[in-house]
Formats: sequence, C-alpha cells, structure tokens
Amino acid sequence: MSGASGMRWQVSQTRRVEYDLVNVEDVFDPGSEALLSMGRVRAGRRFVVVDECVYRHHGPRIHAYFAHHRIQARIVPFPGGEAGKTVERWLGLLRELDDFPIHRRDEPVIAIGGGALTDVVGFVASSYRRGVPHIKVPTTLMGYVDASVGIKAGVNFNDRKNRLGSFEPPRRVLLDRRLLATLEPRHLRNGLCEIVKLAVIKDAELFGLLERHGATGLRAAFQDAHGGDILDRAIDGMLEELAPNLFEDELARKVDFGHTFSYGLETRFEDRLLHGEAVLLDILVSTAIARHRGLLAVGHAARILGLVGRLGIAPALELLDVELMWQSLQDRVEHRNGHQRVPLPAAIGECVFVDDIARAEIAASIDTLKQWTRP
Amino acid sequence: MSGASGMRWQVSQTRRVEYDLVNVEDVFDPGSEALLSMGRVRAGRRFVVVDECVYRHHGPRIHAYFAHHRIQARIVPFPGGEAGKTVERWLGLLRELDDFPIHRRDEPVIAIGGGALTDVVGFVASSYRRGVPHIKVPTTLMGYVDASVGIKAGVNFNDRKNRLGSFEPPRRVLLDRRLLATLEPRHLRNGLCEIVKLAVIKDAELFGLLERHGATGLRAAFQDAHGGDILDRAIDGMLEELAPNLFEDELARKVDFGHTFSYGLETRFEDRLLHGEAVLLDILVSTAIARHRGLLAVGHAARILGLVGRLGIAPALELLDVELMWQSLQDRVEHRNGHQRVPLPAAIGECVFVDDIARAEIAASIDTLKQWTRP
Repeated sequence: MSGASGMRWQVSQTRRVEYDLVNVEDVFDPGSEALLSMGRVRAGRRFVVVDECVYRHHGPRIHAYFAHHRIQARIVPFPGGEAGKTVERWLGLLRELDDFPIHRRDEPVIAIGGGALTDVVGFVASSYRRGVPHIKVPTTLMGYVDASVGIKAGVNFNDRKNRLGSFEPPRRVLLDRRLLATLEPRHLRNGLCEIVKLAVIKDAELFGLLERHGATGLRAAFQDAHGGDILDRAIDGMLEELAPNLFEDELARKVDFGHTFSYGLETRFEDRLLHGEAVLLDILVSTAIARHRGLLAVGHAARILGLVGRLGIAPALELLDVELMWQSLQDRVEHRNGHQRVPLPAAIGECVFVDDIARAEIAASIDTLKQWTRP
Repeated sequence: MSGASGMRWQVSQTRRVEYDLVNVEDVFDPGSEALLSMGRVRAGRRFVVVDECVYRHHGPRIHAYFAHHRIQARIVPFPGGEAGKTVERWLGLLRELDDFPIHRRDEPVIAIGGGALTDVVGFVASSYRRGVPHIKVPTTLMGYVDASVGIKAGVNFNDRKNRLGSFEPPRRVLLDRRLLATLEPRHLRNGLCEIVKLAVIKDAELFGLLERHGATGLRAAFQDAHGGDILDRAIDGMLEELAPNLFEDELARKVDFGHTFSYGLETRFEDRLLHGEAVLLDILVSTAIARHRGLLAVGHAARILGLVGRLGIAPALELLDVELMWQSLQDRVEHRNGHQRVPLPAAIGECVFVDDIARAEIAASIDTLKQWTRP
C-alpha cells in the first residue's frame, strides 16, 4: 500500500515465510514423492546439487529416481565442506543452472548434502533471478540438526566465513535419518557439538538425554531409538530459537553460543577444524569464562566437561590463541551491531548475554581450561 | 513459531517490509540530516558509493557533508550504467566494504547514482553479512521514477541482464529533483520512456499530462512546476503497482509492459540502447500487436505514436529483430513461470495480459510499426 502525501510516500507490507521439515524414510525410493514436492511433476525439470561423497554412494539411485518420475534432471556432483563454499564455486553453479534452465517458481532447486553444500545452494537459489525455490536434504549430522533447520545461506569471501549470503527460506527440508548411517565418526561428532551447544544453553532435558544415551547414539550413527529422540529434540530446540527470529532482528541469540571465538578459529585453522570442532572449543572457553565470573556453579561446569569427555569429542586445546580469539570477538561486535552479545551458560539449560568480555579474561579462561582438562 | 508434531515441523512467520520515499531539497546541504537518516550519527561510519559523473559535479560537497557531520565516510566513485553492473564490480565493492567496515544494522550503505548503480549497490547491501541496510539517492530520471522506487537489486551475469540479484528494500529513498537538472537530454529521454510506459498501461491522466506538458518538462529537465507534477504522479503510479506486489508473488505485472522484447534487445545492443530506449521499442511493438489483435482502437494507437513523436523520443526501429525478440519472449516465459503474461494496451490507461503471442505476430507487428512511422 502506498499513501502519497505530496512530499512523502510510505511503503508498508508484510511478507509470509513458510516452510516445513519432514521426517522421511528412504528419500531416494522411487515410491516416495517427497523429493518432487513443492513443484510441478508433469514435464518438470529439476536442478539437483549432490555432495560428491553422497553421489558415490547413492548416485545411481538418484538418477533412477528422476528417470522413474520422468523428470528432466541436471544432477551436479559438488564438493562438500568448505571447499565448495567459495564465490567461484557458487558462480559455477549459477552458470550451470542458467544454462539448464528452470522455471522461476515451480521447479525447485534441490540441495542434497551437508551444511556447507546447502548453504551455497541456498545462496544460489536466493540469487538466481532474484530468488527461485529450493529444497534441502541434509546428509550430514551438522546439516540435519543445524544448517538445514534455519534459513541462512552463504559463501565465504575475502578470507572470512559466510561473509556473503542471504536469509533464504527453503520450501521444505527432507530429514532422512538413514543417510547419516554411513557417516564417518568425525563427522558425526562434528554435528553432535551443535546438539551439545543447544543442550547446554537452553535444554537441560536434552543434556540429560545426551548424558544417558549420547555415546551409544554416536556409536549407532543415531540409527537407534534414543538417537532418534536426540535428533528430534535437537530440531525442536533449534526451531524454538530460530523460528521467531528468522531474520535475526534480535541480535542476542542463544544459538550463537559457541559461535563467537569459533569464527576466527575455524577461519585460521580451516584445514584442521570442522565447524563443530571450533564451536566446541568456543563452548569450553565460554564455559570457563562463565565459571571465572561466578555465573556458572562448579557442578554445572563439571557436568559440561564430563559430557564432552563421555562423548569422546574433546577438542585440540593447543589451537586456542588469545589474539585470534580477541580479533574474532571484535568482528562479532560489528556483526552484532556494536555489542558483544556473547551468550554464556548460567546453568545447564540456561544462559545470559554479556557485553564486556576483556582480552585478559579470554587468556585466563584458556589457562583455566587447560588446567581442567590436564590428564 | 514452530509446532512439532513428531514427524513434521511447520515454520510460519511474517516479515515486515517498510521504507519511504521523501522529496528533499538539496540533499548535500550540510544543514540537511536526510543523508544520515536511518542510522547512527554519533561516531558513525558510512560507506558511500557515488556515480563517477555525479562525483565530478558534487564530490567536494559530498566530502564536506560528511566532514561537517564528523562521520567517518568511505566515498567510492563508481561507473554508472551497465559498465558497473557486473559480478566483478559487485565483488570489488563488497571487498572494499568488508575492509572498511560497518556495523551490521545502523550504518546504512548509501547509493548515489542512476538505476544501474543503485541496483548493484542494493545487491551489495543484500549480500553483505546476509543483509545490511541501505539508502538510495537517485541521480538520473530512470533511477528517480523507476529503479529507486522498487526493491529490485541485481547485476548482469552469463551475458544476461539482472540474472543475479535479490529483492532488497532500501530503508529510505531521497528524491532530490535538482540532481536531474544537469542530466544530458538523452538520459532524460531514457527515464521518460518509463513514465510513458506507466501512462499508457495504467494512467490516462498522466498520459494527458505528458501530452500537454511532457515536451516542456523535458526541456526544463523537470525543474518546472508541471515537470514536478509529472514526476510525483509517475511515482504514485509506480508505487500503486509495486507496493502490493513487492516480491512479485503475482507474475502478471502491468509494469512489465515494455519489458518483454526489450530484455533481448538491450542485451544484444548494449552499446547502442539505454534501458528506456529498449523499453520504448518494446512499447511500440506491443502497441502494434495490440492493434493487430483489435485489442486497441486505432485512435488510441495514434495517440501513443503521437505522444512519442511530440516528446521527440522516437527510437531506432532498425534494431528490431524477430528472432532476437522471440528468444527474449522465451526467456521471459521461464521468468514468468511458464506463461508469457505479456501486458498489452487495451486503451490509454488500460491493459490486458496475453499468453499466446506467436513468432509471426511479432514479425507482422514490426512491419506495421515501420509503416506507421514512415515519414
């Protein structure tokens, strides 16, 4: 609506954002319609980007799926992880999509892969013709419980993680737990770090689940019943935080726990740290800071360290570097519009936000952490 | 809000979109706060992209403005027109912005220039950190009545216009009519073509204004009273069409009149045709098609041709090429999701949408048009 008043026009509208996440069984089964949802099937086309490793395992089934449904599909194997999350790779996908091509509205792009892949494909979808729909099929635990749940898309740029991107809601997220069954243990642990994050900062019940069933779930690649409970509960919690704040109008976000110092760490140690591993380092330092400040009782800090130990996900503390982490905090201050807004644990399942972390405090907390974890 | 139901989670939210357009006098006057609106002034920073020609005229005043207000400004001269609307230039701006840098929320990027420049800077703002605010100050007539009024941002890619981009609402648009005073006549005519478009397709009163006062307005660079009326009325009309359909949920858009065949023409003849000139070619061919179909009475067609003649904006018909225009229509079919949805004039100020334009019809209409305009 516009109201002209001679010298000033005001535009005021609302836009609806809707998507769903659906648990599916065997998403590549030709009997399932899930992969074709949210678009036209008759004489339809699909541009499908598939993680290279997933393609090695499931490529023939994916081709057979679209052939069965007589969909003209361009299936593009694509590197997983940060290797694919570059401006060059993003432009390469856009060129391939533009040469395919697709309708603007009813032939959704399909992203099948981990969090990095769905991030870059989401940014492809948001940029092409100012936005075409897309569907996400996470194939890593990080993608399953974290990247695919929200609407953040992006690529790395100018040596900085996620510096370019958009908020681009998918039309649908297809959660096929069986795809996690063949993941390497390190990648399972990587995603588990985000579940630990949620448990510490907002969900004492999830924390208890992890204490009791996390280690067995991890060994079973979350194919066991309790593993399934942990995944569902993690998605519940993520959505509780993300859905009311999809576009980050509120910059003090609980889900940013573990995402302050990790930003610099994973940029610097790209070859050594997966995202979740950097997050876990940050979780532990943040826990030590909270303990230093007397925000967190000693028993709670001990439970956090105990859980990390029990899950066997203890990280490489020698990578902690005060200057690097301080600079990372400064960048987050720009990102969080002039304030630190760092979530710190105040108990298992509770957090507070602080704006006054000092450089010396980071140094002291690293030392404390190293003492705690000395064998 | 998320509602977990065991196997399916639904996310359903609305997002508010708000911006305004304000007539201002002398936007670079240090006494005016307009350029600093929508952001912090105290210890603030601004990343300002300025059209090179505008910079030659107004550079010292722009520097003096920010110095006066003690704003730390990075003022970047940037090529106007399509030369700046490339992926490389867009990335160059992003790199410069990232090295400056700015807060994520309260230091809006400022774009001062024509439609192409505000398009690329809008895409910079939408992509940087998944979106930072921006303000537009149009300095061409095309920018003033068209590009800056809506929320479309983008760059050219893969030899196609606007193939990458986003819908990115500005925070504010500052309309300083005096900036148009020094425009070259060709660039005034370029913007005027979009005003003619609106008049033909939806606003008989604006059409009458153009018949009576368009030619004098053009000579006065729209600094005269009637010129001001024409501009205000054009913005009214644009907003009436754009505001209820900001994200183009409805693909049949009256404002796409003149934007079907022009897409291919301006891509092919980039060196010879400005955007508005290509739009005018399309308007005339579309008028001939409407006449051929008996949609448009001969008297109305004659008024359209008469206005174009009176305004002295008659275009280079020798560039019309059936194959090129047919291909352009095919691309628009992908863009308009499988249908042509071509607006054709049904009278002065009225239009209908058609989905069945044939190749032969385009050829016949070009011939008709050439006969009409034979001296």
